[in-house]
Amino acid sequence: MRQYEMFELEFIGEAPQGSWVDVDLTAEFICDGEVTVVKGFYAGEGVYKVRFLPRRTGTFKWKTTGIVEKSGKIHCEAGEVQDEAIQHAVIQNAAVQDAAVQDAAVQNAAVQGTAMGTNALEGIGHGMVQAEGMHFVYEDGTRYTPVGTTVYALPHQPQALIDQTFDTLAGSPYNKLRWCVFPKSFPYNENEPDFYPFEKTTEGKWDVHRPAMEFWNHFEKILMKLEQMGIQSDIILFHPYDRWGFCELSMEENLVYLDYVLRRLSAFPSVWWSMANEYDMMLKRGMEDWYVIEEYIAENDPYHHLLSNHQCVVVYDFSRKNITHCSLQIRDVDRVKEFMEKYQKPVIYDECAYEGDLPMDWGNISGFELVHRFWGLYAQGAYGTHGEVFLSPDDVLWWAKGGILKGESTPRIAYLKGLLKEADGPLAPWELKEFAKPEENQPLDELLKDVRRDNPVANLYYYGKGPERDGMFVVPEYAARYEHQFFLQYLGHTAPSVVTLYLPEDASYRIDVIDTWEMTRKQAYFGASGKVEISLPGKECIAVVAVRL
Amino acid sequence: MRQYEMFELEFIGEAPQGSWVDVDLTAEFICDGEVTVVKGFYAGEGVYKVRFLPRRTGTFKWKTTGIVEKSGKIHCEAGEVQDEAIQHAVIQNAAVQDAAVQDAAVQNAAVQGTAMGTNALEGIGHGMVQAEGMHFVYEDGTRYTPVGTTVYALPHQPQALIDQTFDTLAGSPYNKLRWCVFPKSFPYNENEPDFYPFEKTTEGKWDVHRPAMEFWNHFEKILMKLEQMGIQSDIILFHPYDRWGFCELSMEENLVYLDYVLRRLSAFPSVWWSMANEYDMMLKRGMEDWYVIEEYIAENDPYHHLLSNHQCVVVYDFSRKNITHCSLQIRDVDRVKEFMEKYQKPVIYDECAYEGDLPMDWGNISGFELVHRFWGLYAQGAYGTHGEVFLSPDDVLWWAKGGILKGESTPRIAYLKGLLKEADGPLAPWELKEFAKPEENQPLDELLKDVRRDNPVANLYYYGKGPERDGMFVVPEYAARYEHQFFLQYLGHTAPSVVTLYLPEDASYRIDVIDTWEMTRKQAYFGASGKVEISLPGKECIAVVAVRL
Repeated sequence: MRQYEMFELEFIGEAPQGSWVDVDLTAEFICDGEVTVVKGFYAGEGVYKVRFLPRRTGTFKWKTTGIVEKSGKIHCEAGEVQDEAIQHAVIQNAAVQDAAVQDAAVQNAAVQGTAMGTNALEGIGHGMVQAEGMHFVYEDGTRYTPVGTTVYALPHQPQALIDQTFDTLAGSPYNKLRWCVFPKSFPYNENEPDFYPFEKTTEGKWDVHRPAMEFWNHFEKILMKLEQMGIQSDIILFHPYDRWGFCELSMEENLVYLDYVLRRLSAFPSVWWSMANEYDMMLKRGMEDWYVIEEYIAENDPYHHLLSNHQCVVVYDFSRKNITHCSLQIRDVDRVKEFMEKYQKPVIYDECAYEGDLPMDWGNISGFELVHRFWGLYAQGAYGTHGEVFLSPDDVLWWAKGGILKGESTPRIAYLKGLLKEADGPLAPWELKEFAKPEENQPLDELLKDVRRDNPVANLYYYGKGPERDGMFVVPEYAARYEHQFFLQYLGHTAPSVVTLYLPEDASYRIDVIDTWEMTRKQAYFGASGKVEISLPGKECIAVVAVRL
Repeated sequence: MRQYEMFELEFIGEAPQGSWVDVDLTAEFICDGEVTVVKGFYAGEGVYKVRFLPRRTGTFKWKTTGIVEKSGKIHCEAGEVQDEAIQHAVIQNAAVQDAAVQDAAVQNAAVQGTAMGTNALEGIGHGMVQAEGMHFVYEDGTRYTPVGTTVYALPHQPQALIDQTFDTLAGSPYNKLRWCVFPKSFPYNENEPDFYPFEKTTEGKWDVHRPAMEFWNHFEKILMKLEQMGIQSDIILFHPYDRWGFCELSMEENLVYLDYVLRRLSAFPSVWWSMANEYDMMLKRGMEDWYVIEEYIAENDPYHHLLSNHQCVVVYDFSRKNITHCSLQIRDVDRVKEFMEKYQKPVIYDECAYEGDLPMDWGNISGFELVHRFWGLYAQGAYGTHGEVFLSPDDVLWWAKGGILKGESTPRIAYLKGLLKEADGPLAPWELKEFAKPEENQPLDELLKDVRRDNPVANLYYYGKGPERDGMFVVPEYAARYEHQFFLQYLGHTAPSVVTLYLPEDASYRIDVIDTWEMTRKQAYFGASGKVEISLPGKECIAVVAVRL
C-alpha cells in the first residue's frame, strides 16, 4: 500500500443474486484512529473488489463486512494481479499471495488485514487535487494549475483513436480532461460506441443494476492511463445529448448508476466529479433532482473529490457547500471577478467557446481569440478549458472524439502554462495600483467627497447601486500576481504603446514584454522597482511580466 | 428664402443696455396659417439678427416685435451680406437691398415682410435630420445614415489645424461630427484656445450675458463649413473636462448661455444638440439639473433638433419624450438590442472606445477591433462614432484636435458606408431564421412544451426571468436587412467555414462574401433563394451580403 495510490482487495466467488450494484460489501480502513469506510463493488466474472485510497502513511488495519463474511458462496481464492498499475491484494484463505501486498499481513480468514501505507512515489503520487481558496493544490501540497481540454466522448471511440488521443495529449499542455460516462449523440457524433455502461433487461431497457463490465473495464483503463500521464479526469456523470435513453433514466435509476460509479471509481485520485455537462439542458430534470444527485455524490464519495456542475444557460449555485469550484460555460472573460466575488471558490471557464470553424457560434472562435481568453482568465487568477472543433470529412473533431489537434491555440496555451511556472505559487487578482504611492492612487471616496449626492455617478457610489456595465469604472483589468514575486498584466484586445506598472519599492524585478501570439519575450528592464513605464508594440494581446530577482 | 436653408434678418442699431443675451427681439413667421416664433439675438457691433429655418415652400409672412418696434435706438439701415452662405435680409426702411432677398417684399417699415420660400436646392438642402423609428431621415425624406467621428475641441484649435481637419474630413466617410462649445482641458489637451465664449466681468468672472462675438463668429464659420460639407454637427453643450470654470457655471448662468446658443444656432439645419459629453462626470450637477437643461432646450429650440445626452457611466434616460435618440458610451456591441428594445429610438454608440495606442483603456483599441465594432453595430441596425488617439509628440490627437487620420479603421469604415448604400433603406435587425421553413425554425414554446417547469431553462422561459448573459440563448447575431431587398450578416469574432442564410423563397439574390478588413468581396451565388449554404474563409470579421436582383 502506498500513500495516494489506489489499494485494492479482490474477492472471488459467485455472481450476486439480484442487483450487481447494491452488493453488501463494505470495508473499514483504520489508521491512527482515523476510520474510512468504503463500499466494494462487483467487477464481473465472480470477482468482488474493494478499493481504497490511502491519503497518509502509517499502518492501516482493514476489515471487510457483508457478503464476504456472511455468504458461504463468496470465498477468497488466489488470484493474479490483473493490472500492474493497480496495487491489489488478492485475498486467499489467510495467505498473502502477491508481491504487491507484501506489507499486508492478512490476519483473519480473508476479512481482515493490515497494510503499511508507505510514502508516495516521489514526483508521482501527489494525491487528489483539492480546492484551496481560489486555487487548486494536490493533497501533498504540490501546486496544481488546471489547463484543461475536452474529449467528451473519448471512451466511446475506437481504440486506435483513443490511443492517438493519448499520444496527442502526451505532447500537449493539458492536465485536465473533461469526458463523459455516457455516449454522445450530437452533430459530428453519430457513431455507435463499442460498449454501453449497462446491460439491457429482457424487455430491452437499460438495466442499471447490471453494469456492463466490458464498458467499465474499458472506462477504467482510460482513467488509469490519463492518471499515469498526470491528467486529471473531470468525469461528466450526466449530459443531455443522447439517443439511447441514458438521459431519461428515472432518478431512482440515476442513483443506482451513481452508486456503482462511486464504489468503483472513487479510489482513483485523479477523479473529479462533474455532475453534468449542460445540466440545465436535461429538460426533464428539475433543480431539486440536481440537489439530490449532488447530495448523493457528496455522501457516498468517501474522499470528497472535487465536485461541480456545468451549465448551458443557468449557472449552478456554486455557493452550495458540496460544490468545490465554479465550472462555467461563459464566454466573457471580463466576468471572472463577478464569479470570484460571488462564490469565493476557484473559477474554471470549462467552456468559453471552442477554436474552430463550425457554423455554430460555440464552435468557431479563432485560435487568436481562444488564446486571448486563456490569457485573460489566467491573468485574473482563473482557469480555462480548451476545446477544438474543425470541420473534418471523417467527423473526428477533437472536442468530443480526440485524435489530433489542428488549431493554433494549443502551442500558445503551452507557452502560457510555461510562463506560469515562473510564479512560485498561484496567481491572485492584482489591483494594478496596489503598490502605487498614495498620491497616485487616490481612493474614490476622496475623489467624490465634495460631490453632490444627486449626481448620478456619486449616487451610484454612495448608495451602492452597481454602475451600468461598460461604464468607465468597470473596465476589466487582466492583472494577477503571486505575492511580491511574480506580477502579470495582460493587455488583451487593447493596443497601447506604453503601460505603467506599479511594483513594490523594496524589491527588484526583471520586466519582460511578451507577445502572446508570437510567443516572443523581450526584456524591458532588469532591476526595476516601484513605478515603471514600459514601451509596448501597440498591438493586441501583449503581456507584461515582472519576476523578482 | 429657400426651403431648408437658414434665412436671416439683420437690424442695425446700438448695443443693448444690460444683457446681450436676453434681448427683446422676436419674429413670427407665418405660412399657410402655420406660425413659427423665433427669438432674435445680438450679434455685436450694433447688429441684431433674427434667423429662421423655413421647412416648407410657400409664402412666409413675417413680423418682428420687441426692441425693433419699441426702441428709438434700433433702426434699420442698409447692410451688407456678411457671409455668402447665409441668406440674409438686411432690412432698411422698407427697401430690399440684397439679391438674396429678392423674394422678400418688405411691407412695413422694417418690422414686417413677406418671403417666398422656394424649393430647396436639389441634392443640397434636405432639411434637418430627424429620428424616424430606429433610424434617421432628412426632412425631405432623404435617408441619412450617421457615420460619426469626434473632434471635441475643434473650435479651440489654431485656424491652420482647423483647415487641415476640414481637408481630412472632406476625404473621409464621416458625416457627423461631435464637437464642443467649451474648450477642453484634459491629457493631450493643454493648449489655450484663441477665443472663449464669454467676456469676463470686471471681477474676472465669466459674464454669460456678454457673449464673446469673436468666438461665436468663429464657431459659426466652422458650423457653416461643416454644413456645406454635408456633415451634421452634434454640438456638445456641456462637458466636465475644464480648467476655466465653464463647467462650474450656476444653473441660472447655464440657461442664459443656452438662451444665446438657441437664439443664434437653432436655424442651422445641420445642428444636433448633445446636452453633454459624459454628463454624469460633471460631479456638481444633479439629475434634476439635466432635466431642467433638457426641458429648456426642448422649449426654446423652435425646430426641435435632435437632442440627446451622452454618459460616462450612468446611461441617460432616453425614454424621456424630448430625447430623440440614444447617444451612448458603450463598448459592448452585443448590447445593441437591449437599448433598442428599452428605448425604441435610434441607437448610436457615440463612443465605443477609440482606435489608438494610449495607456488609457478608452483610447487603445486596434483598428481591427474598431472596424469590428462598426460592422457589429451597423449589422444590427445601429450606428457608430469613430475616434482616433495615437500618441504624438505634438499632442495633436484626432479625437479632440483633428488634423490628419493615422489609423487603419477609417478606410474600412468608408467601405462599410459604401456597402450600406446598396440597401434601398435603413437596416433593421434581421432574425436569421425569419424566412426559414417552419420545420427549420421551431418556436421555443414548441421545443419546451413537454418540459418540466422546474427545469431551470424552462423556468426561465415560462416565468420570464432573463437568462444569465452569455448563455446559449443570448448569442449575439449581427444580422440586419432592409425589407426583402438587402440582407447583411456579419460574423464578427467568429470564424466559421460555412454559414447558412435563409432568404425569401420568392426573390432571387446575389450573395457576396466580404472580408471586412481586407475590403475584398467575392461572389458566392448569383440567383440564390431560400436556404443557401455559403463557404467562408474560416477567419474573423467576415460578412455575407445578399442583394435582391
